[in-house]
Order: sequence, then C-alpha cells, then structure tokens
Amino acid sequence: MAFVKRPIIIAMDLEGVLVPEVWITFAEKTGIEGLRLTTRDISDYSALMAHRIKLLRENHLTLRDIQDVIATMDPLPGAVEYMEWLRERFQGVILSDTFYQFASPLMKKLGFPTLFCNDIHADETGMVDSYQMRQLDGKRHAVLAFKQLNFNVIAMGDSYNDTAMLLEAHLGMLFRPSPKVVQEFPELPVVNEYAEVKERILEFASR
Amino acid sequence: MAFVKRPIIIAMDLEGVLVPEVWITFAEKTGIEGLRLTTRDISDYSALMAHRIKLLRENHLTLRDIQDVIATMDPLPGAVEYMEWLRERFQGVILSDTFYQFASPLMKKLGFPTLFCNDIHADETGMVDSYQMRQLDGKRHAVLAFKQLNFNVIAMGDSYNDTAMLLEAHLGMLFRPSPKVVQEFPELPVVNEYAEVKERILEFASR
Repeated sequence: MAFVKRPIIIAMDLEGVLVPEVWITFAEKTGIEGLRLTTRDISDYSALMAHRIKLLRENHLTLRDIQDVIATMDPLPGAVEYMEWLRERFQGVILSDTFYQFASPLMKKLGFPTLFCNDIHADETGMVDSYQMRQLDGKRHAVLAFKQLNFNVIAMGDSYNDTAMLLEAHLGMLFRPSPKVVQEFPELPVVNEYAEVKERILEFASR
Repeated sequence: MAFVKRPIIIAMDLEGVLVPEVWITFAEKTGIEGLRLTTRDISDYSALMAHRIKLLRENHLTLRDIQDVIATMDPLPGAVEYMEWLRERFQGVILSDTFYQFASPLMKKLGFPTLFCNDIHADETGMVDSYQMRQLDGKRHAVLAFKQLNFNVIAMGDSYNDTAMLLEAHLGMLFRPSPKVVQEFPELPVVNEYAEVKERILEFASR
C-alpha cells in the first residue's frame, strides 16, 4: 500500500492573477488619479484604505458606484478557461485582500470558486464608512490551515502581499510580478501564462 | 465603526445531504447486498472499507465500474437549485468522507463547489487496492480551521460522522437524519428541506 499522496489545493490571489486590479479600474473610470495608489505606493494598508475612503467621500462616490464599475469588468484573458480547467481536476480557493461586496460579479464570471476575503460596509447614505480585514496575514494563515488539513498547497500571486503565502506553500509561484518583486524574492519561480501554470501544477501533481 | 461581523462559510456533508449514498446506489445497481452496509452497520470505518474492497475483488468490480455507476447518479431533488442559491450569497465547502475519484461527476452537477475529501487508489488491473483518509476526524478539523481563519461556520450533515463538525460549528444542523441520531443529539436542530436550510442560514446571517 505505497499510496501516500496528499490531495492538492491551489490557493490563488485574485487581482492581477485572474482579474484586473479593481481600484485601478475604478480610478480609470472615474478619472480620480488618487485612487490609483496601491500598496506599492502606500505600504501601510490601513493608511491606504483611509486615503481611498476619504477620496470616495470627497467625490460623493458610493459603494454602489464601485460595484457598478466592477460589474463591467471581465476576468483577464484566459482566466475563465484556466478556472474551468482547474475545477475539473483540482480544488481551487481564491485568497484575496478584496471585499465580498466587490468580488461577487467577478466570482460569477469565474464560475463561483470559493473565496476567502474581507468585508466592507456602507452607511445609510451608501458611502463606504468601514471595512474589516478577516485577519492579519490572512493569505498565509489560510495556506497554513490547508497544510494542517493535510493538503499539498500550491499558491499563486503577483505581489508583495502574496509572498508570505507563496513561501508558506509547498509550491509558490509569482504570476506576472513586477521586476521589483522578482528581484526581492529570487527563490520564487515566475510564470507569465496560464499554460505555464497548468504545466507547473501537473508537474507537481505527478511527483 | 460598529462593524464586527465575520464572513460565513457553510460546511456541508455530501452523501445524504446533496447526493444519494454512493455505496448504497452501487449495491443496488450491482445487486451485491453486502455493499449496502454503512457505518451504521460496521462502525469501524477501516473494517467497513476492508469489507467493501474484499467484496469488490470477489465480484471482479473495478474502480471504473464504481465511477460508471456514479456517473449515472443525480443530486437529490432541489440540491442543484440550493447550491445555485448558496454560491451567489455565501461561501460553501463540501466536507465528505468520500473519495475525489468518486465525487467528480457529482461535483460537476453541483457546480463544482470546493470539496475536502480523500483519495482511493486502483492497482494496474483497475481493482481498488488502497485508500487514504486525509486525516482522522477531518470534518471537525476543517470546521476548526475555518474558525481559526475568523469565519463564522454553519455546518450541515445527516449522520454520526457529521456530529463532531456540527457541534464544533457556530450553527450545526442535522439534515434528514435517522431518528437514532436525533435522539442521541437532541441539541442539534433538525431540518428536512432546503427551504428550511436557507431560512436558517439567512436568520444566522442577519444576527
């Protein structure tokens, strides 16, 4: 009975990996340059979110306005086909710093994979007034939890806030990362196309 | 900022809750009475699986034969619609003692929810020769992991092997249980229809 393989879970970041960046898309649609800033510009996430909430309020933009823009967004080219391929073969879970209130139309387009993310809240006028991160370092904690449940974990992400989960996984891949992230994490393999992702997953599964 | 709700995960058993019992269906199709036995008859799961593997071998039934029968199975009436309703609103994960090699056609019919289960293996002649439970008490461990990731967990199952996860969840429900399970776990609420399940979930979410 030399049968000791563990089942595989693929943990994936959402924005930049399967769909475009939500805030950047919203900044482009509204023309509000300040909403383009990401954790690359303001590394403190609470400070960044406070900045975004302030800009939304100043421009009288509601949660519904953001949702309306997200409803027009499409997954990255090839992402839908990749997710179809994946769900027929492996268990996939999306680990994202986004909010359930943002993600839902995009999840529908991706075939409703399981999503671990956070909540954002609007006041009675529809203005965003608060948000709640489910936990600090949530992506890495999710990968750790899957490992404790005896899964082999493959993780894929594009950015700094993914590196902790990528390093924690049995196989961590950077998907279309910036040159700066590549330089800082030379130990993480880089993939640029979904075809390469599939190859890496199948290679890992065949070990 | 009085916004302290946690996102909800619904952990669900598979057989008896969303689809019929696989081994019982296979016993009916093959006419092999001994394959009808479940954990209700042989409480030791390894002894039960050894009994099943022995019967398969004696009757020259391969893994592929089991898969062919499963491919003809349909989810329970209402289960597909319930899962469609669920995935538009909440995160759902299936926690099952079944095997990935069995479940795949049923998962397709349910819209490919994330499935945490186990692996079964066939030898070069196609005969089942081994299996591997991902971990002992895996359903309860998965609920515990979701709690550690700061989810509020609702769990639903029909049988003895579900009661540990039901008791561990923030809300645990017995779905169409046997009278014996109800009698033994009077603290667990009983639901018999998907409409009641939806009501309970919405009521919990509105707290």
